[in-house]
Amino acid sequence: MSSQLKGACIFGQSGGPTAVINASMYGVVSAALASENITHVYGAQYGIKGVLEDKLFDMGAENAEELKLLLNTPSSELGSCRYKIAEPKEDDSDYKRILEVFKKYDVRYFFYNGGNDSMDTCNKISRYMSSVGYECRVIGVPKTIDNDLFGTDHCPGYGSAAKYIATSCMELYKDTCVYSTGTVNVVEIMGRHAGWLAASAALASYKGCGPDLVYLPERDFDMDSFCADVERVYKEKGKALVVVSEGIHYADGSFVSEAKTSSNDGFGHVQLGGLAVMLASVLHQRIGVKVRGIELSLLQRAAAHQASATDIAEAEMAGRFAVESALSGVSGKMAAFGRDTEGGQYRCVPTLIDLEDVANREKTVPTEWINAEGNFVTEDFINYALPLIQGESDAVYEDGLPRYAKLKKIYASQEVTV
Amino acid sequence: MSSQLKGACIFGQSGGPTAVINASMYGVVSAALASENITHVYGAQYGIKGVLEDKLFDMGAENAEELKLLLNTPSSELGSCRYKIAEPKEDDSDYKRILEVFKKYDVRYFFYNGGNDSMDTCNKISRYMSSVGYECRVIGVPKTIDNDLFGTDHCPGYGSAAKYIATSCMELYKDTCVYSTGTVNVVEIMGRHAGWLAASAALASYKGCGPDLVYLPERDFDMDSFCADVERVYKEKGKALVVVSEGIHYADGSFVSEAKTSSNDGFGHVQLGGLAVMLASVLHQRIGVKVRGIELSLLQRAAAHQASATDIAEAEMAGRFAVESALSGVSGKMAAFGRDTEGGQYRCVPTLIDLEDVANREKTVPTEWINAEGNFVTEDFINYALPLIQGESDAVYEDGLPRYAKLKKIYASQEVTV
Repeated sequence: MSSQLKGACIFGQSGGPTAVINASMYGVVSAALASENITHVYGAQYGIKGVLEDKLFDMGAENAEELKLLLNTPSSELGSCRYKIAEPKEDDSDYKRILEVFKKYDVRYFFYNGGNDSMDTCNKISRYMSSVGYECRVIGVPKTIDNDLFGTDHCPGYGSAAKYIATSCMELYKDTCVYSTGTVNVVEIMGRHAGWLAASAALASYKGCGPDLVYLPERDFDMDSFCADVERVYKEKGKALVVVSEGIHYADGSFVSEAKTSSNDGFGHVQLGGLAVMLASVLHQRIGVKVRGIELSLLQRAAAHQASATDIAEAEMAGRFAVESALSGVSGKMAAFGRDTEGGQYRCVPTLIDLEDVANREKTVPTEWINAEGNFVTEDFINYALPLIQGESDAVYEDGLPRYAKLKKIYASQEVTV
Repeated sequence: MSSQLKGACIFGQSGGPTAVINASMYGVVSAALASENITHVYGAQYGIKGVLEDKLFDMGAENAEELKLLLNTPSSELGSCRYKIAEPKEDDSDYKRILEVFKKYDVRYFFYNGGNDSMDTCNKISRYMSSVGYECRVIGVPKTIDNDLFGTDHCPGYGSAAKYIATSCMELYKDTCVYSTGTVNVVEIMGRHAGWLAASAALASYKGCGPDLVYLPERDFDMDSFCADVERVYKEKGKALVVVSEGIHYADGSFVSEAKTSSNDGFGHVQLGGLAVMLASVLHQRIGVKVRGIELSLLQRAAAHQASATDIAEAEMAGRFAVESALSGVSGKMAAFGRDTEGGQYRCVPTLIDLEDVANREKTVPTEWINAEGNFVTEDFINYALPLIQGESDAVYEDGLPRYAKLKKIYASQEVTV
C-alpha cells in the first residue's frame, strides 16, 4: 500500500455518546481538512447507518469557529447508532452498499469513532474492502466512558466521566454531612461489566470527600456483606455514602438490579426504580436508617461542563493521530493510548493496535486494584485514574450557559452529482 | 436602640443546603471579624441546635485563606437542622436556653441563614429577646434553591441551582438527539410547592437545547393532557425532553408522585422509583416509546462546580449586608434583594424586609408566566431568571477536583470559662 493515496474521507460516530466524542471528531475533521491528500471530508449521520443511507454531511462547508466549539460540545453531534453489521460471509449486502457509497464519493479513508462493537464494525469493513481490492484505509478512534476497550491504557471519554462522577460524589458527600442525624446515600454509576466508572468515585474519597464504600462488577456481590459494611460505617460515622456499579451481580451471575429480594414488599417491580433506590430500600429495612438512592443516569456520559481538559486534549489527539496514521499508510488499526510515566510524570503516548485485537473484547478493573473486602479500590487505581481527570474545561459560555457548536449539516448528496 | 453595640455574634445555617450558603457564611463571618464592635464570631453547629447545645465554633480561630474557600464549598459547612422552635407562649424552654447561651458568650448579634422556617425561628428569637429586654440584633439571611421566599426578588442559592439544572438539561437534550430513533426523557426537578427550579430548565430551551415541555406545581396536572402533549412533540420531532416539578399535583391537590395510576402493573410501589420513572413508565405504556426517567436529586442543591458567579457574589453580599445592617442598629429584618433594571441592566440591590412578613409565607411562579397550555413558561420568566445564572465559578481545583474549605471547627466552649 503506497502512503500517497488521494480521495475523500468519511468520519462516523457510533455507540453511546460521551462528553468528548466530538473532540475526537474535531481532531479527525480538522486534520483531514488540512490534508492535501484528502479531497473531501464527510461526516456520516447516525454512524454507519449514514453511510448505508447516503446521509453524509459535507464537513468542508462548516464554519471553522463552529467546528472548534465541538471540543466542548457533548454527545455525538453527527448522531450515532448501535447498528450491528453482519458477518460478510453470512450477509454481505451491507458491505456491498458501503462499497457503493465509498465509490460514489471516492472514499479512501474511513474513520470510525466508538467502543468495542464499533471497532468490530470497523474491522469488518476494513477486511471486506481488502477482500474486494478496494483501497481504503480504515482506522478506529476509541471512545467510551466505560473505559473497557482492550489494548489501550484508557479511553477518551472516561476521564471526563470520571471527573464528573468524582466531583458529584464530593458534592453528595458534603450533602450527606448536613444534618446531625446522617443519611445513607446510595449512588448508582454506569458500567454493566466493567467497574472503571464506579471506581472513579474513589477519587473523591482520595480528596477526603467521597464514598465510604464502592462496589464493582468485578467482584461478586453479597447482600448480607453489603448491609453489614454499610451498618458498620453508619455506626462509626453516623452517615454513609455508598457507590455501586449498575453491573454488580451475585455469585450466580444474576444482576442485583434485576433480582428480586427476599422481602415481600413488591420488589418484583424494581425495574421502576433502578438499583440505587432498591438497595437504599433494602438498607432502610435492614438497618432502619434514612436512605436515598441516587442515579447519575445519562448525565455522567454527557457532562461536558465538567469535562477533563486532559481528556478533551487526548480525544482530539486520538482523532488527529488516526488521520495522520492513515495518511502515512496505516489501515486496520485503532488509535490507542500508551502511558509513559518516566520521571514520575504522566504522558499519554498515541500508539496503534490491530482492530482484530480490540474488537469485541472487554478490559475490566484488575482484581488486585480492589481491596480484600471487595468494597473499595486500592491506591493503584487512584494512581491510574488521577492523571486522567486533570485540568478544567475552558468551554465558551453565552448567557451563562455553554455555547455548543451549531453545524450547518449540509448533505453531500445534495451537492454531488454522479 | 443605639447603633453602637458591642458583643459577640452567632451565625447559624438552617434548612436544606445550597451551593452558595457557605458564601453567605463567608460574607457574615468576614464582615463580623472585621468589625470592631463584634468581639467574637461564633458559628453554630447544626443551626439553632448548636446554640441550644452550646456547640459553637470559634470562627476567629480559622485560617483566612480557608474561610475564603467557603465561597466555592457546597452544602452547609457548619451543619444544619430542620428544628422547629415552639411558640414562646406555649413553651419557652428553648428561648430561655438560647438566652442563657447568649448571655454566656455575651452574644449581641444573631445571624440566621435559611428559608421560610428559619426566618420564622429568627423572628421568634428576635421577639423573645425584645420581650425579656435582652439587647440582641437579629437578622435573617435568605437561602433556598426553591426561590420561594416572600419579599425578595430572588434567593441566594436559586441562581446556582438554576444554572446547574439548565446546563444539565442542555446536556440531556444533546443526549436525547443521539439516535435516529429518539427517546423520551423525563426529568424530575425539586420544588414541592413552587416551580422556580423546574422552570429554570426552560433557560436551556432558550439556548436551543432544552426541554420541549415543562410542568410546574402552580398549575393542576392532567395525565391525559400530559400524554397528549408528549405524543405530539414526539410525532413532530421523533424525541422529547420533558421536565416536571416534583410537586406537580392533580386538581384535587394530590401529588402525582404519590398517586396510583389506573394501570395494573404495580404502581402502588411508586415510592420506589419516584415521579420521573413513574411518568416515563406511563408514557411508555400509553404511546409506546422508549423512555427514561431521570432525577437530578440532591445534585441540584449541591452542585457548586456549576454555581453562578452572580449567585455566589450575591450570597456573600447578603451575608455582609446583614452584618452591616445589624451594626447600624437594624434588627428583626431579613436581608432581601431588590432588582434594579434601569438602562436595561440587571443590578441586585440589597434591601431589608420585616422577618414578620417573610416567615412561613411562600412565593410561587406568577401564573401569567406559565403558558396557556400549562406546559411551558413565558419569556417573562426567562427575562427574570437569565441574569441570575450569569458568570462561571472560579473555584480552586487541586488534583483535578474542587478544593473545599477545611475548617478547624474548634468549639468555643473549650475556650470560654464562665
